[in-house]
Amino acid sequence: MTAAAYQQLEQRFAHIWALEQAQELLHWDRETLMPSGGASARGEQLAALELVVHERMTDPVLSDLLDNAEVDAPNDPWPAANLRLMRREWRHANALGADLVEASSRAVSAAVAVWLNARPKADFQAFLPAFREVVGLTREVAAAKAEALQVSPYDALLNRYEDGISGDEIDRLFARLADVLPSLRDRILAHQETGAAPALPQGPFAAGRQRALGERLMAFAGFDTDSGRLDISAHPFTAGAPGDVRITTRFDEDDFTSSVMAVMHETGHALYEQGLPHDWRFQPVGQAANMTVHESQSLLVEMQAARSAEFLGFIAPVMQQELGGTGQGWDADNLHRLTIRVGPGFIRVDADEVHYPFHITLRTRLERALIAGEMDPGDVPEAWNTGMAELVGVTPPDNRLGCLQDIHWATGLFGYFPTYSLGALAAAQLFRAACDQVPQIKPSLAQGDFAPLLIWLREKVHGQGSLLSTQELLEQASGAQLGTAAFEAHLEQRYLG
Amino acid sequence: MTAAAYQQLEQRFAHIWALEQAQELLHWDRETLMPSGGASARGEQLAALELVVHERMTDPVLSDLLDNAEVDAPNDPWPAANLRLMRREWRHANALGADLVEASSRAVSAAVAVWLNARPKADFQAFLPAFREVVGLTREVAAAKAEALQVSPYDALLNRYEDGISGDEIDRLFARLADVLPSLRDRILAHQETGAAPALPQGPFAAGRQRALGERLMAFAGFDTDSGRLDISAHPFTAGAPGDVRITTRFDEDDFTSSVMAVMHETGHALYEQGLPHDWRFQPVGQAANMTVHESQSLLVEMQAARSAEFLGFIAPVMQQELGGTGQGWDADNLHRLTIRVGPGFIRVDADEVHYPFHITLRTRLERALIAGEMDPGDVPEAWNTGMAELVGVTPPDNRLGCLQDIHWATGLFGYFPTYSLGALAAAQLFRAACDQVPQIKPSLAQGDFAPLLIWLREKVHGQGSLLSTQELLEQASGAQLGTAAFEAHLEQRYLG
Repeated sequence: MTAAAYQQLEQRFAHIWALEQAQELLHWDRETLMPSGGASARGEQLAALELVVHERMTDPVLSDLLDNAEVDAPNDPWPAANLRLMRREWRHANALGADLVEASSRAVSAAVAVWLNARPKADFQAFLPAFREVVGLTREVAAAKAEALQVSPYDALLNRYEDGISGDEIDRLFARLADVLPSLRDRILAHQETGAAPALPQGPFAAGRQRALGERLMAFAGFDTDSGRLDISAHPFTAGAPGDVRITTRFDEDDFTSSVMAVMHETGHALYEQGLPHDWRFQPVGQAANMTVHESQSLLVEMQAARSAEFLGFIAPVMQQELGGTGQGWDADNLHRLTIRVGPGFIRVDADEVHYPFHITLRTRLERALIAGEMDPGDVPEAWNTGMAELVGVTPPDNRLGCLQDIHWATGLFGYFPTYSLGALAAAQLFRAACDQVPQIKPSLAQGDFAPLLIWLREKVHGQGSLLSTQELLEQASGAQLGTAAFEAHLEQRYLG
Repeated sequence: MTAAAYQQLEQRFAHIWALEQAQELLHWDRETLMPSGGASARGEQLAALELVVHERMTDPVLSDLLDNAEVDAPNDPWPAANLRLMRREWRHANALGADLVEASSRAVSAAVAVWLNARPKADFQAFLPAFREVVGLTREVAAAKAEALQVSPYDALLNRYEDGISGDEIDRLFARLADVLPSLRDRILAHQETGAAPALPQGPFAAGRQRALGERLMAFAGFDTDSGRLDISAHPFTAGAPGDVRITTRFDEDDFTSSVMAVMHETGHALYEQGLPHDWRFQPVGQAANMTVHESQSLLVEMQAARSAEFLGFIAPVMQQELGGTGQGWDADNLHRLTIRVGPGFIRVDADEVHYPFHITLRTRLERALIAGEMDPGDVPEAWNTGMAELVGVTPPDNRLGCLQDIHWATGLFGYFPTYSLGALAAAQLFRAACDQVPQIKPSLAQGDFAPLLIWLREKVHGQGSLLSTQELLEQASGAQLGTAAFEAHLEQRYLG
């Protein structure tokens, strides 16, 4: 009886998951290929799918099946975790009414369309009405979920992206970073001043050649091109479905290191998706775990592996060859110093790993205030610029380089930003554990060979799907819960060692 | 009460239509971009969406709303036609059970994946099991629809793509073609023999340059790039959503005329989609009418306009310039003779307009027999080759050039092929009417200007959406129901004139 209930749940969730994948492809297409004229119809398509998924998730039969299956929950760890995750999905969906779900979906589609036009013009006032609508509806979502999950409204949003680390624990980790990072940053900048600045190889570097280089790098890292592809979008991201993992990048013809590292970053996400347990690919437990783990995989590949002296030593001649580089700056030492150059800047996605957490702190602070109703959306630009001056030490000259730079809030992603920094901590902790356990990893990177690292990640992270909580996964892989020690040590060693 | 019912129907059909658009994008993506590893998950996504749409269409509330709305149907022609089309959609969907819908969707996804591998290897035996499955399920679909629509099983399938011309009338038109075309074809071939063969400009012509040329041609024809795009697929096709109309082509580096004319063909489809009535874009009446009309638009632009001596005279130097052509064969007269060269061949999509109807006759004959259960799917290769010898006069050397060439049957499209030839008849009839009514059309084509033609099409065809039946539309636009006279006259004039 209960086993039958669980089987029926698997069927229902496979169906729901297929619909969510369809949504994801529509999102991906919107960011990569869709002509501007398609925005209105795409909004309708996404809202329709959102409604169907919500209807499936709030079907009383589903609720009964969950109750029945939980009476005598499966003993095997995979189905047991799967059932827990089904309940988690159910809780988030059932906290919201269909009207709110549909209104949010439409508000987001409208806001994204406005944002795409407003950002290049740095026109916050044009964005404000749509932004206000999204914030208002997200506050309603947060309030409803807070009641259902019995946490604060902001933590209820955060919970969607990271439920394996408590809000208090996240506060503790961020407080520690706030304590140690400012002085560490200052020491790093001072130390960097003592050496010569790296030379910047002279472009332009044609997009086609950068793309070919990116594809070679993906191959070095182990990306399977039969199960994925590389495309172009304004902001690099990863999306897709089982067997179809899509990463994007953009090409700056003056600075190829930007696209190279974006490709490595997204490849880290993609390797995770391509390594998820195949047998569970249509079930919740077969999906990637919380966003902290996802970000740890992109940052591990980009920040820990790809920007290492070992890998840079290997790819320096590859980069020069693929880009047809001549003149100065193509030696491995210079390219390595170039890719780990530290300095304040306006743009989060271009920030170095030392400054990145400050950008996250700012966004977390502002979105907490917005969700709490303590800040009016119209006050964001001023608060943003003040925060940037305080935290990063620079004031954006306009809102394009300021509060309009990220798409997240337009798409209703509130509570997501903290996982970037949690991911950076986890990346450092996992990479150190991997290198301790498998001494061959670093020498292999120096040969352009990710295999020893990938094998370890497949076993400890990718192949685990959502079986473990973030903390369980980190404990099993690295012997400790998430902390800041490995990240601090990594910065000390790379920049002051 | 009934007005309220109609309003609710509009909402429900807009929702269903949005879901169908999502399906269409998933199909488009599968043919253009999807890596092979994504086939299994894509099949699940499409099956899930198919089920949801079917569930919406068979919801008893929808049935009640239709009954109520029809009691006092709207008087305005647009809502009245919309309500009739809703009932038509309802009839097709409600003829089928959910199990059959889901099984068909999965069988088609599997068959397409097998066909993609089997075709290049000419391996019909590898395709046969999946093909047999699709034929079997399509026969079930045909039987169920035949009962619901009170027509023969094959006519029930045909009805999905063309319901404005009766099956008997279609038989009459095809019989007339079978009467006149063989001798006309022989006279054309004999006449062609009396002149010198056109020279073939020497390639290779890089895909990138052909693409740039294609984009210029699309612009000449009036394609709006803010509301559409051009991509690459194995078979050219058109898909999309309101404001987002996507055409595809493929590039043969030895023969650029093939991609040029494929682009013009799909542009004809796209202009139709881009010209549909905006206010009705999420309703059945706002969609393109039957496939006969759709094919008439592609063939009108390609066969009637783009292959005319007038337009060829204009684009000959454009083609030479964009492709960097040197040497012989670039003069307008030669290029025109090249693009209207007639000869037998194996491949339908490469066939000239004189031979094309013979390819359609073969497919129609075979699919009628398959649906009637008078032919076993395993006997298709032999019947195909025999039919080709009889109708076209050539015998395919293998199944890649024979019965495996088209994707249609793998995707469950039975009853669709006849609309290609009906569309050719309609294209000739409409183009003649347009040129008679607007003398400026042909001189404008000689200047590369499609505007006078497009204005006429916007008014008489595109802007009508599905307001009129195929016969009504032809009567209003050309003064007569669909016939073969204009097509015959066109062939006489172009090839024997």
